[in-house]
Amino acid sequence: MTLFPAMFNDFKRESLIGKAIEKKLLEINVFNIRDFTKQRANSVDDEVYGGGNGMLMMAQPIYDCYKKIMEGKSNIKTYYMSPKGKTFNQEMAIKMSKETEINILCGHYEGVDERALQLINTEEISIGDYVLTGGELPAMVVIDSVARFVKGVLSNDESTSEESFMNNLLEYPQFTRPYEYEGLKVPDILLSGDHKKVSEWKLEQAIEITKKNRPDLYEKYLKDKI
Amino acid sequence: MTLFPAMFNDFKRESLIGKAIEKKLLEINVFNIRDFTKQRANSVDDEVYGGGNGMLMMAQPIYDCYKKIMEGKSNIKTYYMSPKGKTFNQEMAIKMSKETEINILCGHYEGVDERALQLINTEEISIGDYVLTGGELPAMVVIDSVARFVKGVLSNDESTSEESFMNNLLEYPQFTRPYEYEGLKVPDILLSGDHKKVSEWKLEQAIEITKKNRPDLYEKYLKDKI
Repeated sequence: MTLFPAMFNDFKRESLIGKAIEKKLLEINVFNIRDFTKQRANSVDDEVYGGGNGMLMMAQPIYDCYKKIMEGKSNIKTYYMSPKGKTFNQEMAIKMSKETEINILCGHYEGVDERALQLINTEEISIGDYVLTGGELPAMVVIDSVARFVKGVLSNDESTSEESFMNNLLEYPQFTRPYEYEGLKVPDILLSGDHKKVSEWKLEQAIEITKKNRPDLYEKYLKDKI
Repeated sequence: MTLFPAMFNDFKRESLIGKAIEKKLLEINVFNIRDFTKQRANSVDDEVYGGGNGMLMMAQPIYDCYKKIMEGKSNIKTYYMSPKGKTFNQEMAIKMSKETEINILCGHYEGVDERALQLINTEEISIGDYVLTGGELPAMVVIDSVARFVKGVLSNDESTSEESFMNNLLEYPQFTRPYEYEGLKVPDILLSGDHKKVSEWKLEQAIEITKKNRPDLYEKYLKDKI
């Protein structure tokens, strides 16, 4: 549910998501909230009560759009993309990937009338501690991260098992051909064929980068290890 | 710098970013890394040394693309969008909005050869604790949040002064017309015209939602208040 359906066109066409839609592993239906307004001049927003800057999306077009989507359906969870929400993470992505259908409400401008959220009973989720123009990019971020956990979306030789956040560690550095580029060589250990040593090196490197870039995650890693 | 330049078309055209580009407040140049490859069959990726799933972007096309962009320029910082990076936030958005030019490298597939990052001297930044197909959506998220702090991008009646994260608090609930919708009324205090009481109510509500959704932020709020 969005006021800017065109923002999703490239996203639905390109890269992994485009392929997943083609293979019918995924379906993305974009609903234009403006199509449901009963206001004069197709308006969808109005000023904020009690003072405040900018315009707020009205409850009526959102709620009517929601009711249309939910016709004949039940048990579909609605997420509202908002900096006020709980912080989205990999764990939530895995959980959401097990749902058959999810509904996402994208706010825009100053946000939405609180009553729309009460009537729809949304879960507010935030993709991070920053403010954006609207919920469209966050919705695409959520869809992309969730889609990676839908069976068949990643090809067989890709995998979600050895990547950042899996054990509260960030991923180790990676190298590909050529062996030497601009005077920089691939660490010899990676060419040794000694799987045990390679694994040890990867873990060491992962610990080092996590310590440096994310001391908060590193603490969690230590705690969970015990 | 991306392997999927078409992903940026809608983003550059729609909403706030589209208007900011039209008003020449903002310029977004998308470079296709594939245009710079010297590999056979226009290839840009190869297998990971030391075992591992998926394909890695090679250093050469990235570094040559980078050198082309930097011709005749200096002091432009390059950010690499990666879950391994430091977590992007509102503070970083404000800081980045003061730069004249920034360069963003979008990885895809398994990521990029570490040597590309060493040669370019990038700062790795992550938009949150989840893994995505590529750095394209994260790059758009960063551009959108940074653009909001560029003078003239938000209209005069919008503002970044009263929004989430500004004092480690989330934003209070907001309401617009009509006064009553589906039996739900706007809180009377917001119609009272008593600015002091309205401000108190807003702060109270902000504290309550922060406590509930983001106990970590609430602790920071308490600490900074002292």
